[in-house]
Amino acid sequence: MAAPPAFVPPTRVLHGPGPSEVAPSVLRALAAPTIGHLDPAFLGLLDAVRSMLRQVIGTENELTLPMSGTGSLGMETCIDNLVEPGDRVLVGIHGVFGQRLAEVARRAGGEVTVVEGEWGRALDVEQVRKVAAGARFKLLCVVHAETSTGALTPLPPFRALADELGALLLVDCVTSLGGVPVEMDAVGADAIYAGTQKCLSCPPGLAPVSFSPRARAALDARKHKVQSWYADLSLIAQYFGGERLYHHTAPINMLYGLHEALRLVLEEGLEARYARHRTQSAALAVGLEAMGLKLAVPAAERLPPLTLVEIPQGIDDGRVRKRLLDEHNIEIGGGLGKFKGRAWRIGLMGESCQPERVTGVLSALRSVLEAEGFRATKTR
Amino acid sequence: MAAPPAFVPPTRVLHGPGPSEVAPSVLRALAAPTIGHLDPAFLGLLDAVRSMLRQVIGTENELTLPMSGTGSLGMETCIDNLVEPGDRVLVGIHGVFGQRLAEVARRAGGEVTVVEGEWGRALDVEQVRKVAAGARFKLLCVVHAETSTGALTPLPPFRALADELGALLLVDCVTSLGGVPVEMDAVGADAIYAGTQKCLSCPPGLAPVSFSPRARAALDARKHKVQSWYADLSLIAQYFGGERLYHHTAPINMLYGLHEALRLVLEEGLEARYARHRTQSAALAVGLEAMGLKLAVPAAERLPPLTLVEIPQGIDDGRVRKRLLDEHNIEIGGGLGKFKGRAWRIGLMGESCQPERVTGVLSALRSVLEAEGFRATKTR
Repeated sequence: MAAPPAFVPPTRVLHGPGPSEVAPSVLRALAAPTIGHLDPAFLGLLDAVRSMLRQVIGTENELTLPMSGTGSLGMETCIDNLVEPGDRVLVGIHGVFGQRLAEVARRAGGEVTVVEGEWGRALDVEQVRKVAAGARFKLLCVVHAETSTGALTPLPPFRALADELGALLLVDCVTSLGGVPVEMDAVGADAIYAGTQKCLSCPPGLAPVSFSPRARAALDARKHKVQSWYADLSLIAQYFGGERLYHHTAPINMLYGLHEALRLVLEEGLEARYARHRTQSAALAVGLEAMGLKLAVPAAERLPPLTLVEIPQGIDDGRVRKRLLDEHNIEIGGGLGKFKGRAWRIGLMGESCQPERVTGVLSALRSVLEAEGFRATKTR
Repeated sequence: MAAPPAFVPPTRVLHGPGPSEVAPSVLRALAAPTIGHLDPAFLGLLDAVRSMLRQVIGTENELTLPMSGTGSLGMETCIDNLVEPGDRVLVGIHGVFGQRLAEVARRAGGEVTVVEGEWGRALDVEQVRKVAAGARFKLLCVVHAETSTGALTPLPPFRALADELGALLLVDCVTSLGGVPVEMDAVGADAIYAGTQKCLSCPPGLAPVSFSPRARAALDARKHKVQSWYADLSLIAQYFGGERLYHHTAPINMLYGLHEALRLVLEEGLEARYARHRTQSAALAVGLEAMGLKLAVPAAERLPPLTLVEIPQGIDDGRVRKRLLDEHNIEIGGGLGKFKGRAWRIGLMGESCQPERVTGVLSALRSVLEAEGFRATKTR
């Protein structure tokens, strides 16, 4: 039996598509001594977490809680609880996470219709309406913030469309929550899910979800049990609700971290936080374009927390990212799906979204690109 | 928008059925700065975690990894990956977690046959053999350490039975791993799952699973996709394996914690750790019986990390547990299922399993019980 030495992570500056930088007080919160998941003090913490989540999501939904897994479990939770075998599901795809929604819905037994939108653009509601062709659907799935492309899709037109189709509206908010207004109740979304490691700046490991009363009613009216016991909200709600029935052991220390991360979000104020993401993202875009780089998403459709930059011709994707990491300790993301090898993803999420970070990533990227033979069009 | 004050957990001494006490170095590890899930340093950490897990599990299985959720997700992962619609599954039930296995297997479409064993006893292989009646099964499910009753079931006879039935052997090791020998390869188990918050003394949030080559072959030979995308090991293995394909964002900081917790297990040595659990558990049993309390599980079938104590007549379950928590900061567990209101569960798991802890919990329990009118049969 041999134990390896203790792990000491390298110092990194996180500008990938998540995880984002975590505030020192959140890291400290993670390290508080573990208590029991039925301890009254812990149940009080859960109530506070749920209350703060409601504020950040912009909802009064009773069924609002953090799932014990990462953002993809949040997606699966929403689909598994709302889709029964044979239910018709309409999914707008304009990136990897729309594809994933369709795949998860098929595995839940849904009859899935997909709309193949343009990657790197907002989802076009008219295109979705056309594919739907007036048919009835149980669920319409839209990705608010496509983490694979950096495109932001306005939600209100999809609420109107969902009404026309008789559908519940499910929204992926993984990369919007905490960085871009979600306003679930104002939009009229029926179910949303998110992750903690993006604009909330908490480590990955929890997935906030929220169900409207209408989504809850659909859950209560199911003919079949939810296929996942672990993600069955009708059972989980009994632990989070007044009954406090044991379902599974909550990830205690992760919830300490989320509590502190949400506190920081509310202390900053949502409007100030959104403004910070808009301002710094705009500064990053100006800097990248000034260098002669092209942004893949049209300005009006960009997701402030995540910027997609086209890789210049003749420049090697992997080499640049490796040099940024090795020489500057900066992580940026590679492209996914159709953008694999064609674009980089630069995140400015939560704690990572600061003026000095923008100048830092711009300067490091310019230096590496020049060393790799790229000729920036303008001087510093 | 109002942010609540920072959360400071109360000081607790954890003697419930998990979470157990977490070592200071594990708590500190949780608080290390977050890095990316595709960072080479993080991928190295994952390899080390998997290597240490194999040592603790007693296996050389390539497919050994921590799932991104709590122990129940580990259960669901094993079932969902091994059970296809119509597959025959045989489940031995002698507590809540056997019931849960049967429920999860039904939700995966399995044709489930249950064997209702005696709660608070080891599972009787002859009873299971009788119910099986020589039929063929895809999967035989056994709970090694029943967390709801504190009974330990020897595994080798079930391997022999699984062979007779042509079945894969799936074992719940949630409360045994790290406190009681699991020896997966020596036993010949095909799939096991565990949690981190029991005898590994890491906070809850990860679920080690391991699949034998035979179980992996069954996964590869599936006719239908695994119903859970999140728990689909054929996809997850591509992230953990050489391809490093992105599946979902791993819970980075929790994995820092598990790395350190496993290091501590190996530094202590498995045999020394098992001996510590046996010795302290025996001391607790002597102390409880000396007080006039009855243990619900026969001595030869007891699970050292978790002791089931019958609640004496006339003593109020909830009041005693509340007083232990309020007056002594000690958490013990209530009964589950058939033992609800009839027994307490006292955990001596991992870091919580120390001589001074045994005397501490005995002395506090005696003091509360006497204050509640119970007359201990012997003097201190």
